[in-house]
Amino acid sequence: MEELIAARVRTVKPSFVREVLKAAGRKDLISFAGGLPAPELFDVEGMRQATLEALEKDPVGALQYGATEGHAGLRGEIAKLMAERGAHISPDQLVITTGSQQGIDLIARTLLDPGDVVLLEQPSYLAAIQVFELAQAEMRGIGSDGEGVLPDDLERQILALKAEGRAPKLIYLVATFANPSGATLSRERRVRVLELAAQHGIVVIEDDPYSELRFHGESVAPMVGLAQEVEGAENLSVYLSTLSKVVAPGLRVGWMVLPAWLQQKLVIIKQASDLHASTFAQHVGYRYLQSGRMEQHVPKIREAYGQRAQHMMATLERLLPRVLQFRAPEGGMFLWASMASGVDTMQLVPRAVDAGVIYVPGAPFFANPEGHAHHLRLSFSNSTPEQIEEGVRRLASVVMD
Amino acid sequence: MEELIAARVRTVKPSFVREVLKAAGRKDLISFAGGLPAPELFDVEGMRQATLEALEKDPVGALQYGATEGHAGLRGEIAKLMAERGAHISPDQLVITTGSQQGIDLIARTLLDPGDVVLLEQPSYLAAIQVFELAQAEMRGIGSDGEGVLPDDLERQILALKAEGRAPKLIYLVATFANPSGATLSRERRVRVLELAAQHGIVVIEDDPYSELRFHGESVAPMVGLAQEVEGAENLSVYLSTLSKVVAPGLRVGWMVLPAWLQQKLVIIKQASDLHASTFAQHVGYRYLQSGRMEQHVPKIREAYGQRAQHMMATLERLLPRVLQFRAPEGGMFLWASMASGVDTMQLVPRAVDAGVIYVPGAPFFANPEGHAHHLRLSFSNSTPEQIEEGVRRLASVVMD
Repeated sequence: MEELIAARVRTVKPSFVREVLKAAGRKDLISFAGGLPAPELFDVEGMRQATLEALEKDPVGALQYGATEGHAGLRGEIAKLMAERGAHISPDQLVITTGSQQGIDLIARTLLDPGDVVLLEQPSYLAAIQVFELAQAEMRGIGSDGEGVLPDDLERQILALKAEGRAPKLIYLVATFANPSGATLSRERRVRVLELAAQHGIVVIEDDPYSELRFHGESVAPMVGLAQEVEGAENLSVYLSTLSKVVAPGLRVGWMVLPAWLQQKLVIIKQASDLHASTFAQHVGYRYLQSGRMEQHVPKIREAYGQRAQHMMATLERLLPRVLQFRAPEGGMFLWASMASGVDTMQLVPRAVDAGVIYVPGAPFFANPEGHAHHLRLSFSNSTPEQIEEGVRRLASVVMD
Repeated sequence: MEELIAARVRTVKPSFVREVLKAAGRKDLISFAGGLPAPELFDVEGMRQATLEALEKDPVGALQYGATEGHAGLRGEIAKLMAERGAHISPDQLVITTGSQQGIDLIARTLLDPGDVVLLEQPSYLAAIQVFELAQAEMRGIGSDGEGVLPDDLERQILALKAEGRAPKLIYLVATFANPSGATLSRERRVRVLELAAQHGIVVIEDDPYSELRFHGESVAPMVGLAQEVEGAENLSVYLSTLSKVVAPGLRVGWMVLPAWLQQKLVIIKQASDLHASTFAQHVGYRYLQSGRMEQHVPKIREAYGQRAQHMMATLERLLPRVLQFRAPEGGMFLWASMASGVDTMQLVPRAVDAGVIYVPGAPFFANPEGHAHHLRLSFSNSTPEQIEEGVRRLASVVMD
């Protein structure tokens, strides 16, 4: 039957996270692997109230088919949230998606032909790489440091492609508390990336699930907001975000900010994909945002994650001194670490699982994984301080073995 | 910017239903257009209870990320429902989708390469045609009569393709109360289609949103159930269904029954598409199915739709005698009607809208629309008897003008 499968699908592999999460079914396993929010911090009572309100005030709206673009009330609340993040947009520019993952897939389906070039920060979000693979795009990694992508390297690569007679179509970035690196792109670099995009006619996708999770430091405006100040950039800026990390992933309520020319086409693809995101979940999300509970609740998540990050870093320094290098993130859910080059973190996984701890090895996060086997990603969001202590102890027993 | 859009997207047009629904924003308009369930029949209290139960019994499960295949409890309840419909399947064969629309899209993405041939009943569900267009498939219509597709025509087309050295990859059917034709494929024809599929190695997709909505007559087992009795067919049978027409479309909870070889690949595509369907909606659907309220509630929907169908047919016969031909459906939501050939129902739309009534013209339901301009689809599910009376009166004023 395998011959019936489409050619492009035959080459796509399940993401490593999927495999890791399966292994993590073991009850005694401490997982630093998945990017899961802490379930004990879910605002269950807030969700309950939002649902009751949605079913009381507009039961038909919450249960009937809806517009592909999304629920008008929710789009209004999200436009307000975007303004607080530093991007003044119109609700008309929004499309509500089934999680922001769908946003990446929809943009790839709308813009990419096989062989098109996508430039993405190196390392990059695994499931984005999977989407671009499925679109049969050619991925090229942009070099980065602790502050995110290097605009000079971006320019170098664009010019090298142009010299080959090719034009990159997309730049994909997690600009704030990147997955997996934890890095945040400075305002200056954001503007420079937008200038390059405008100059060369490339669409920039900023994927922003984490920016609300800042422990300290100054927030930086989303690129879609900064684009309004860069000539020619506004029409090329796409922004993705989600309620997954700040309210609940189970809602699968994400959103895209899009320029009009792109939104029209993308909505047609979205309609063929699933008609629209769950109106039930959208109405619950709408009532929740409207209630003002999110503003009260997010600081609790921020504080807890900040403490967990701090605790993980201190424990790593205590139990794995000098063996594991990392840079302290200013927010988000991840610690990106490196061992001595020569260590292969993928090969360590089975022994780590035997010891009762799991992480994500670094190589799969790179479009070109060579030379990146010594990295690993540790998530601190979904483990209690006790679990962090014990998990790092187990990791140390394997690494120091 | 248009040049950045992917080649295959440039040719895809918004579905006519989308346009029609926009026009239907007019408050005084009576819509026989969209396939919307009657909102006054939503079991709002049942949904409320199901949500409260979901958040009380397993808040973390309902709000956290979940498996791409779907929630285990919901898959178990759906396997029971499938057994009641006449198909004994394992929960492992199921994938929960964001509505059954996503099932069509996922199967197309998993199986179709550009240029592949899809055989589909003529006329066929609009948004399925849109999916196959987006997949750049070549669509060929299978002839049908009041009992659905003609297996002899199906065989003729398969053999004609084989004579050209080509092999069709998919057969797509709504076998029960088809959209738009209302026709139901007999058991004998279902078996014959399965035999042909097995003989020629073609995947059969049965899309079944409506089978619970039977007004009278005997139910026919789903093809995925019958496939167990046809040698070689089981591995080629795919079944799609949804809670949209029997519980609420807003949940966007659909499902697929798949053979193992296909499920593994499709789940990888699903993961890249949106990680998983809303766990919140899945848990609510699970608690609702488990409560037993659906069995009590569906007969009410069935009775109301049966009366509405009856009322629409009687009113059409009274106000448009001999002008509009149709066949009485045994269930579902649609009446498929024809005017004298020569009448173009698409051209009538603006005058109908002016008169305050809207329907879907027939031509877009055909892969090859030539010669089908005199058909139209009338939905009776979403209008009260009074609206049906007044809507048909308005339609008659336009047609008889």
